[in-house]
Amino acid sequence: MRYRNRPDLVLMASESEEGGAAAGVFTRNRFCAAPVEICRERLGKGSIRAVVVNAGIANACTGAEGLELARGMTRTVASQLGVREEAVLVASTGIIGQQVRLEPVEKAMPGLVASLRPDGWEDAARGIMTTDTVPKMSWTRVEIDGRTVTVGGIAKGAGMIAPDMATLLAFVCTDARVEPRVLQHWLKQGADQSFNAITIDGDTSTNDTLLALASGAAANSILSEAETADSRRFGRALSEVLLDLAIQIVVDGEGATKLIHIRVTGAPDPLSARQVALTIANSPLVKTAFFGGDANWGRIVAAAGRSGVELLPERVALYFDDLCVFQGGTPVQGAGVEEEATQVFSRKEIHVTMDLGMGPAEFSAHTCDFSYDYVKINADYRT
Amino acid sequence: MRYRNRPDLVLMASESEEGGAAAGVFTRNRFCAAPVEICRERLGKGSIRAVVVNAGIANACTGAEGLELARGMTRTVASQLGVREEAVLVASTGIIGQQVRLEPVEKAMPGLVASLRPDGWEDAARGIMTTDTVPKMSWTRVEIDGRTVTVGGIAKGAGMIAPDMATLLAFVCTDARVEPRVLQHWLKQGADQSFNAITIDGDTSTNDTLLALASGAAANSILSEAETADSRRFGRALSEVLLDLAIQIVVDGEGATKLIHIRVTGAPDPLSARQVALTIANSPLVKTAFFGGDANWGRIVAAAGRSGVELLPERVALYFDDLCVFQGGTPVQGAGVEEEATQVFSRKEIHVTMDLGMGPAEFSAHTCDFSYDYVKINADYRT
Repeated sequence: MRYRNRPDLVLMASESEEGGAAAGVFTRNRFCAAPVEICRERLGKGSIRAVVVNAGIANACTGAEGLELARGMTRTVASQLGVREEAVLVASTGIIGQQVRLEPVEKAMPGLVASLRPDGWEDAARGIMTTDTVPKMSWTRVEIDGRTVTVGGIAKGAGMIAPDMATLLAFVCTDARVEPRVLQHWLKQGADQSFNAITIDGDTSTNDTLLALASGAAANSILSEAETADSRRFGRALSEVLLDLAIQIVVDGEGATKLIHIRVTGAPDPLSARQVALTIANSPLVKTAFFGGDANWGRIVAAAGRSGVELLPERVALYFDDLCVFQGGTPVQGAGVEEEATQVFSRKEIHVTMDLGMGPAEFSAHTCDFSYDYVKINADYRT
Repeated sequence: MRYRNRPDLVLMASESEEGGAAAGVFTRNRFCAAPVEICRERLGKGSIRAVVVNAGIANACTGAEGLELARGMTRTVASQLGVREEAVLVASTGIIGQQVRLEPVEKAMPGLVASLRPDGWEDAARGIMTTDTVPKMSWTRVEIDGRTVTVGGIAKGAGMIAPDMATLLAFVCTDARVEPRVLQHWLKQGADQSFNAITIDGDTSTNDTLLALASGAAANSILSEAETADSRRFGRALSEVLLDLAIQIVVDGEGATKLIHIRVTGAPDPLSARQVALTIANSPLVKTAFFGGDANWGRIVAAAGRSGVELLPERVALYFDDLCVFQGGTPVQGAGVEEEATQVFSRKEIHVTMDLGMGPAEFSAHTCDFSYDYVKINADYRT
């Protein structure tokens, strides 16, 4: 499609004749790409047999022609696999405002179909990369109804969560038998705590796509309700894979040198917890302080203060790992607090906890620091 | 107070015996500094005679002791000037979490009072600086009721709009006779189009303070209604000074190499226009593209798309100066578009206009680019 020295077109297909359940979570950007529109259209309308993904051209801001080309990609797959066109989903990542070409897709398809194999995951993970420096994979197993169910996935983050060459794409597959709406329930819940809890620079893509496909090959009795013990066990396994993939994306963030977990506890409700955590996680001042190894609690407190949540400053406590640095509206005095805080900030992985002292809700966000390289990569990107 | 080689304590006082009208706009950060609380308490409760400002220590996150020390600063001024304590306002900027000391204020006060003079503005502008590289001043004159009225002000921005050493402070003085609530009306309106329309990194301070003081010495018949011709003329003069000061702050933004105006037109309402403009202006991806001179319309469009405003992508048009680069949901094709766009992006001052095609409202935001120096300054700040 675009890259010269490596594969950039990936096909995933289900062996199961009757196809399987599928679910999806997509970008909320108003300028969404053509493939996202196709996926939204087709999910919930019959089983899904395959997904085709290309890296290099995003097929976003491409109008009616782009939509027709995205449909054309799925049609090519459908005719090769002998399935309905509507049973094929599509995802793209890359340059926006440029049209894909169907010819290379048509030319590659027989070879792609012939090379489909159960252990092709690492190749697939590499095939969807753009500015990622490493392929991202994760899997786990769980017992359901006496059967071993596998949940595994691949993702690309990119340097960043960005619009023009750095979409977040993730595909999770499982052999569980599960109703589409139960799959959607757990996918949404898992995404909220993983892909929707990470931030590199606060920007979102036109193409962000998270798909889950369930073949049913494990032959467990079908998960048709969200709130059963088996279903919850499946949901936890799915969440685990999603969070692992999401963290891999942050660690590979453009210019990232540190992994930072921002946990907000004691919030009046989950949305407030999320809002405070993401405001801190997105603050350029906070992120440059992490890069500099500067245990600058003032920037974290000030970011929380502008989050829009009606905090009560005198109830807020801030911890770097287990070290309390701020409480009762003032910094914690004492010998060694500053030194110990600096010590925490020198690590590669840092846990920050802010307790709001207002209620039972909490949320964890995951981010990276803001380095010279972030500016370098993004100032020079297209040139 | 803190700096060794330059003044960092400033006193402004009105010659008028009966004092004058005052108005204020303050940070919305929940962790607001003690001086902000004092100002909020005293505005609207009688005339204001003086303002004392210190640079170096923010008196934020300092609890009840900090509040008492801020009161102490105003008490010292009041006793030297022979006015009520409540007629004195206070503003601070600098390190947060540290207490101010009253002793240097008490020691300096007789000298400050003795050196009060009408042409001390530049010294005052220098005295409130922290990481600013140049003092910021602006003034204008306007005829009201046959009298010449002067509006002049000083500001400090700082490298950035940041919590620990880089508050936004601005003080505008006028000899107009104006009712406090009319002054507040025009100050709020002017601030919304100036200090609340600029962004360097989206972070806000615990100490941000904008005060307007009107002595009445021009002896015009008092402006007691907002919606008269004279009053509007006064409002425009005030807005002009505020916008000029705000732009000076952006130009002196930490690491800034370019001044960028983001104008959003055709919005369904002013709030939507503002939200789209500020989302674009705050996007690290957009700002690094400006730094790199990369006319990356995709990042601007994608930032607008995640602003939360329900845009209709096919109605959106994007202009770099007068050059249309995106319209009808797709990039504008044509010879030379890319070259001309790159040409625009190589300038020191760049005008970006996005027309939403949805209504009559508009908003202009003003920002700077995101450079290596931004990261350097903020990663190394406290060390």
